Amino acid sequence: MSDLAPVLTQLDNSLDQSLERLFDLLRIRSISTDPAFSDECRKAAEWLVEDLKSIGFDASVRDTTGHPMVVAHHEGEGPHVLFYGHYDVQPVDPLNLWNDDPFDPKVKEIEPGRKVITGRGSADDKGQLMTFVEACRAYKAVHGKLPCRVSILFEGEEESGSPSLKPFLEANAGELKADFALVCDTGMWDRDTPAVCVGLRGLVGEEIVVKAADRDLHSGEFGGAAANPITILARVLGDLHDETGRVTVPGFYEGVDETPKSVLESWASLGETAETFLGPIGLSKPFGEKDRSVLELVWARPTAEVNGIIGGYTGKGFKTVIPAEASAKVSFRLVHNQDPVKIRAAFRAFVEERIPSDCSVEFYPHGGSPAFQLDYDMPLVVKAQAALTEEWPKPAIAVAMGGSIPIVGDFRRMLGMESLLVGFGLSDDRIHSPNEKYEMSSFHHGQRSWARILDMLGK
Amino acid sequence: MSDLAPVLTQLDNSLDQSLERLFDLLRIRSISTDPAFSDECRKAAEWLVEDLKSIGFDASVRDTTGHPMVVAHHEGEGPHVLFYGHYDVQPVDPLNLWNDDPFDPKVKEIEPGRKVITGRGSADDKGQLMTFVEACRAYKAVHGKLPCRVSILFEGEEESGSPSLKPFLEANAGELKADFALVCDTGMWDRDTPAVCVGLRGLVGEEIVVKAADRDLHSGEFGGAAANPITILARVLGDLHDETGRVTVPGFYEGVDETPKSVLESWASLGETAETFLGPIGLSKPFGEKDRSVLELVWARPTAEVNGIIGGYTGKGFKTVIPAEASAKVSFRLVHNQDPVKIRAAFRAFVEERIPSDCSVEFYPHGGSPAFQLDYDMPLVVKAQAALTEEWPKPAIAVAMGGSIPIVGDFRRMLGMESLLVGFGLSDDRIHSPNEKYEMSSFHHGQRSWARILDMLGK
Repeated sequence: MSDLAPVLTQLDNSLDQSLERLFDLLRIRSISTDPAFSDECRKAAEWLVEDLKSIGFDASVRDTTGHPMVVAHHEGEGPHVLFYGHYDVQPVDPLNLWNDDPFDPKVKEIEPGRKVITGRGSADDKGQLMTFVEACRAYKAVHGKLPCRVSILFEGEEESGSPSLKPFLEANAGELKADFALVCDTGMWDRDTPAVCVGLRGLVGEEIVVKAADRDLHSGEFGGAAANPITILARVLGDLHDETGRVTVPGFYEGVDETPKSVLESWASLGETAETFLGPIGLSKPFGEKDRSVLELVWARPTAEVNGIIGGYTGKGFKTVIPAEASAKVSFRLVHNQDPVKIRAAFRAFVEERIPSDCSVEFYPHGGSPAFQLDYDMPLVVKAQAALTEEWPKPAIAVAMGGSIPIVGDFRRMLGMESLLVGFGLSDDRIHSPNEKYEMSSFHHGQRSWARILDMLGK
Repeated sequence: MSDLAPVLTQLDNSLDQSLERLFDLLRIRSISTDPAFSDECRKAAEWLVEDLKSIGFDASVRDTTGHPMVVAHHEGEGPHVLFYGHYDVQPVDPLNLWNDDPFDPKVKEIEPGRKVITGRGSADDKGQLMTFVEACRAYKAVHGKLPCRVSILFEGEEESGSPSLKPFLEANAGELKADFALVCDTGMWDRDTPAVCVGLRGLVGEEIVVKAADRDLHSGEFGGAAANPITILARVLGDLHDETGRVTVPGFYEGVDETPKSVLESWASLGETAETFLGPIGLSKPFGEKDRSVLELVWARPTAEVNGIIGGYTGKGFKTVIPAEASAKVSFRLVHNQDPVKIRAAFRAFVEERIPSDCSVEFYPHGGSPAFQLDYDMPLVVKAQAALTEEWPKPAIAVAMGGSIPIVGDFRRMLGMESLLVGFGLSDDRIHSPNEKYEMSSFHHGQRSWARILDMLGK
């Protein structure tokens, strides 16, 4: 710990200056989705390049057909890591719901001993990415070097669909490929409990259109004899789960692993229950597979969900029509090693089997991506958890997320590297909403956490 | 047959004059739904009153808050019948699709030996109602009296929802109540085969709204743990039928009679098959209860149909939402003695049983009416069938209709009388569409048919 202690002290002593730097960055209105703010996006990229150069990075603004990337490299011993973050932010409207100017950041004490940094981008993602930059700065200041070889990629289009990202990764794969990526765009479990995210669910989206008669029919004239596509569709969707909540599509659970008992126990220790998880949205009973905790259901189990359905007359009043067609949008959340291609094919076969021979069904694919899952006992994960546990009041846990972070799939597929997802956001940070904030403790202990992780990775 | 023969001869001899009278009526633009034609509606009512007076009816135009009614009475021995028809017609747009002016009726020979009367209202319902009037005129001309006591009610709002009908029936119940009603607004089976309609299906309409979470959810964050109202709704609707196509709502078949074997045989003799019935709409397989003919399915069996469904994201593309609610419009066609009140209640219980305890469902009723069903061997029916069989190339059959004719229920409920539904329309008469026509044979033999029926009823 001899290398680390003075770095942590340096971070503690330079917190005010690090805050000033973050404020400089937060004042730049780098809203990527609005062309009116293009210059501000470039300004944020240039500001980051200058700041990284001041630490000793070989940093540059790299043009794309959209907003520029920031790429920086610093030599070092040990593993090569690529740190990813994004400098662009969400729009700020409705402006009247903000208590303060979103681009005039402030520190506010919202309860005794609890300070937050306010402003657009404070949590998503400027505050988060600067925790890493500050860790590098302090380490360099104390030791004149970094504990491992560090590359950095800051994107300026994350909030507007990342149109330039894949082409850029492809064109610069050799330069950007590292041993693994560090991504700081996730959160903690709660204010005391840090988290490493080791799983993200994948997704298969499919639209199905069931067609019956060649026109809308009067249900008096034809009802009881002519096929009703809504009924056919309802039977298909009603059949998607068995009475235990398992998805019935044949082969669906191929590639799904049981979550290790130790992991389930660590999740159980978090105290999340059906009541605490579902209560805030007005529900109380888990709806999916029986006899599994809500956290397991959303973090480590696959799903089949109907996201939309329409058919027949849906206006006011009533119309006794048997429509010619009915359609639904269905998505599957995938975990572990489920194969999106196989699952799409199996679902289509499942549907086709349930379509009467004189009716038809059309399929329209909407995206397909596998899950991301690191082994819970992977050295990278174990080391990061240990480092985080040193820093925070409670032990770090390995969590998963129900949704997806596309960059993680891109890094794996295009650069052949896994990602370690560590972040210090909280669920009440109001990212994308008025009054976004970032906890001062996230900013401060986030810096210290990255110093610890870098130090541990270098060993 | 001594009373009848000269009447039939009189009808044959006066066909040209009867055609002129019909043309006079068809030239009146009595479009009830468009206020611009209010005067024309009154003109049609007045024309009918004058014509009925010329036969010897005590006839009058009776004002309502909408278009007027025509009421006429003629004394006679034997049973008292109330003949019902309507003098109003549907709008004619799109006018450019008509081959001739819709209000300048013509006789056209569309194939050798087959003449039709063209024009709006020729089949629906002016041509039909005049078949009855002409039968009365000829009978009166020959015998100086009618074979039974005849009242007539002509409505002017049938094509615009009949808003004045119930109040008028209520206010004039004593005057209008007869032994039974004769309604001429239905059709023949085909050009050679007359029909008596003895059954009309009833209807229960119900809208159900399934509610789960108190807001739309992200399916990544909550999918697998939170209830999906579309899935719940799909399960309910998918459960509505068993594998034999029977409706599974408990008690649903209470009051449903098996159709007599002799009736099923007469329907079978018509040669309608799944292919002939469903082929024209692009289908081939009966969808409802197994092992029943398509005619039995639509004429004598009850149904459960989903007429509309909506929930979640239904726009272009994809949105991984778990919606807060989903809704469907469901209707039941009823036959025989099924009770709409009981069926609505049973359906609601059926749905509620399938709603998870932390979700809810709301019900919105949309109409409920029992079926209309005469006994196939009721004397009125048997007599009318015998009379029709005398007139046409093929024997008359007792048919049913899948839809409903509200007046029949109103007569039963408000005036306590059953209706005999006899008409001479054909399925290709294009009622409500451009180029409406009425077969000359329907007009001519329709007159003769009513003469035969009146004569037989008077005996």
